[in-house]
Amino acid sequence: MSYKVIDSKDVEYLKSIVGENRTFTKEEISEDFSHDELGGVSNMPDLLLNVLTTEEVSKIMEYAYKNDIPVVARGSGTGLVGSSVPLEGGIMINLTGMNKILELDEENLTLTVEPGVLLMEISKFVEENDLFYPPDPGEKSATIGGNISTNAGGMRAVKYGVTRDYVRGLEVVLPSGKVLELGGKVVKNSSGYSLKDLLVGSEGTLGIITKAVLRLLPLPKKAISLLVPFPDLNKAIGTVPKIIKSKAIPTAIEFMQREVILSAEKFLGKKFPDNSSDAYLLLTFDGNSKEEIEEAYDKVAKICIEEGAFDVFIVDTDERKEAVWSARGAFLEAVKASTTEMDECDVVVPRNKVAEFINYTDELQNEFNVRIRSFGHAGDGNLHVYILRDDLSKDLWKNKLLKVFDAMYNKAIELKGLVSGEHGIGYAKRKYIFKQYGEEYMSVMRGIKTAFDPENILNPGKVCE
Amino acid sequence: MSYKVIDSKDVEYLKSIVGENRTFTKEEISEDFSHDELGGVSNMPDLLLNVLTTEEVSKIMEYAYKNDIPVVARGSGTGLVGSSVPLEGGIMINLTGMNKILELDEENLTLTVEPGVLLMEISKFVEENDLFYPPDPGEKSATIGGNISTNAGGMRAVKYGVTRDYVRGLEVVLPSGKVLELGGKVVKNSSGYSLKDLLVGSEGTLGIITKAVLRLLPLPKKAISLLVPFPDLNKAIGTVPKIIKSKAIPTAIEFMQREVILSAEKFLGKKFPDNSSDAYLLLTFDGNSKEEIEEAYDKVAKICIEEGAFDVFIVDTDERKEAVWSARGAFLEAVKASTTEMDECDVVVPRNKVAEFINYTDELQNEFNVRIRSFGHAGDGNLHVYILRDDLSKDLWKNKLLKVFDAMYNKAIELKGLVSGEHGIGYAKRKYIFKQYGEEYMSVMRGIKTAFDPENILNPGKVCE
Repeated sequence: MSYKVIDSKDVEYLKSIVGENRTFTKEEISEDFSHDELGGVSNMPDLLLNVLTTEEVSKIMEYAYKNDIPVVARGSGTGLVGSSVPLEGGIMINLTGMNKILELDEENLTLTVEPGVLLMEISKFVEENDLFYPPDPGEKSATIGGNISTNAGGMRAVKYGVTRDYVRGLEVVLPSGKVLELGGKVVKNSSGYSLKDLLVGSEGTLGIITKAVLRLLPLPKKAISLLVPFPDLNKAIGTVPKIIKSKAIPTAIEFMQREVILSAEKFLGKKFPDNSSDAYLLLTFDGNSKEEIEEAYDKVAKICIEEGAFDVFIVDTDERKEAVWSARGAFLEAVKASTTEMDECDVVVPRNKVAEFINYTDELQNEFNVRIRSFGHAGDGNLHVYILRDDLSKDLWKNKLLKVFDAMYNKAIELKGLVSGEHGIGYAKRKYIFKQYGEEYMSVMRGIKTAFDPENILNPGKVCE
Repeated sequence: MSYKVIDSKDVEYLKSIVGENRTFTKEEISEDFSHDELGGVSNMPDLLLNVLTTEEVSKIMEYAYKNDIPVVARGSGTGLVGSSVPLEGGIMINLTGMNKILELDEENLTLTVEPGVLLMEISKFVEENDLFYPPDPGEKSATIGGNISTNAGGMRAVKYGVTRDYVRGLEVVLPSGKVLELGGKVVKNSSGYSLKDLLVGSEGTLGIITKAVLRLLPLPKKAISLLVPFPDLNKAIGTVPKIIKSKAIPTAIEFMQREVILSAEKFLGKKFPDNSSDAYLLLTFDGNSKEEIEEAYDKVAKICIEEGAFDVFIVDTDERKEAVWSARGAFLEAVKASTTEMDECDVVVPRNKVAEFINYTDELQNEFNVRIRSFGHAGDGNLHVYILRDDLSKDLWKNKLLKVFDAMYNKAIELKGLVSGEHGIGYAKRKYIFKQYGEEYMSVMRGIKTAFDPENILNPGKVCE
């Protein structure tokens, strides 16, 4: 597919929409805008437009649509699969300036925000109002627009679900420039196909999110974490289905291995409360009373000990909390810093298949003689597995990476898992989504793409193409 | 659009798929299959096929697709908007025979069911296993397939959300006959457009659901209800946003008026615990400990009294529970029995707009001199408003109905509500969904329909057509 190349007439018109100060031509654009955090792909946009209003986005899209110019929307650029990379150049719409919290509605328990508000700003704001936005992805500097576009998950999904579950309504600019309101402040909706749920997780390929109405919960009054050392990862992860079966509902169940903890200690220059064991579960519990939480974690602690845990550390002092959670928050960066280059796999499998999958990655590590590190959300089956280049030559690494990825995704499919739990498909994982779903499924997806974007100008080359 | 009329050759082939015993030609089909409970529309199918397997559904669809024969899937026929009426005749696939509970997976907290399992069977089964399927629509003899197809809500949506929130995976037969697996047992999913969420609430127009993986929760150990009499409906409903704002989370908040209670008493031949007040809120609370529930309902009881409630009755004995909930369960049938004919509106508005909407229906009652009764889910903003014919002539009633509907839906849209909270659009509410969304929005929906069903053979004439 070939698009119109942006010329000076286009630049003049687009500049008239957002003003000179917020229009940047190719040579003025920072290289940062050509890539995300880990997609393995980069390309510069021809024009960067820093928008401030829905009307500006609408006018830009209307022009691009009429003139066949490709457009990519971008938030903080913290994606991991290349979703916001402008493969075809064209216009990049930078939404980070649309960063206002518009309304807290305490009678409907909703928060209305612009797409560029950061995750950390949302949690701070609502918690100050004794309210709670449960999705909790590790990357707090991501924008809410980006979180919605990838249906981001995070650690609290075990108890609270994912971003989709907290999006009540969206304002969206279609590729044609038309503005649609999807859903709203309403709690129920059986009014036609759920376009709102289609937009969630569509990685900027169906429309540009310019406003979101988020569902809030009352802030749980208490929370506590348990750090549980196990002799090995198998024992640790094997305990998780037993915890789920016990009907205790932890807020989060994370797993981690000693090597990753050591990397984080080195990266942060800070000690983790314990690094003497091979594998750990980190569990959190929240609720409104001490008794309620204690009852839940007593039961779970007992199960862990029965399953072979060495001990159960209660993480209740501020110091311990800080040590544990700053380490957990630094795992991705720490693993990244421990090698020359890496790529990741974000599969999700049924919760009782996590151990089988992780054992398989251990086999692959030996078979291909490549370093593989993983940590992740044992409680919801979503694994982050990192393949590290270390000192491999580029060709050898690419070759091993391809084989390891193929093997891992095949295994995930075999276990009735899915290609991506929370990072999305974007550019980097398209091969595997095709493999997972097959032609019939993908052609339905392409039909949906066409229904929204008949000229294929919005974020081309992603997800289902 | 004109379809192929079923001939004897078609009948022979289709009979070869499901067998003679489960094939019924027009004259053998009960009139029941021509309509649902309240859609105001009916038409007989030409052929009724009682299927038992996904493979049968797939083969039927493949044949229908090749031969341009319209197909409608049907569960219990308890719909209220004509979704399962075969407007164009053709094949009706009766899914009530696919009624097996296939698997309870306690390690993943999922229940896998065929589409014909009844809602009451699901709740019974899971509760026997100390588990909980939260969606709780009033019509317990509806099938789960029908519930998923309308994204049914019910009373517990205040705390637990709607059917969509409890569907993890679906097996779906496309109009072409191809079988797709959408989602699965996984907790997170960022693997392309969420076709699963599109199917939920699509009222049998995009594919036929042949299997569903439902998400379960641990069964709350305790539940209690409060019946709260108020001097008038305004005071009752005006209290709801204050309850929400207080951060107590009731499981359900229903409102009811004396006339509806009297109808239910008459209909059931049983007394309601109290009928001396004009309006009532019925609240339930659930949780795992007496203390937890008491704390929540104490707070809410205090708010109710502050807002003018006469009293707060705790519904804790079995006798009282039975009296209250059997009445609540009979409201629809009781209102129906109190008149000659009726039609309903199932709007959903933001929770703090319920009072304004109900006041408006009171005005309409006076303005058009027609009896209007309502009850519903005050806690989630979803109202069921019934317009009663009584002794009006057919023409006069139709005329008034049209005007009252137009006025009510306009009001709902003005209040940022939506046409349907839980009953769907089907055939009966298409006019209003067009009004709500406008052409651009509807054309995206039609594009989605085309992506799934390019020949438009599956449930034609519904939702977005």
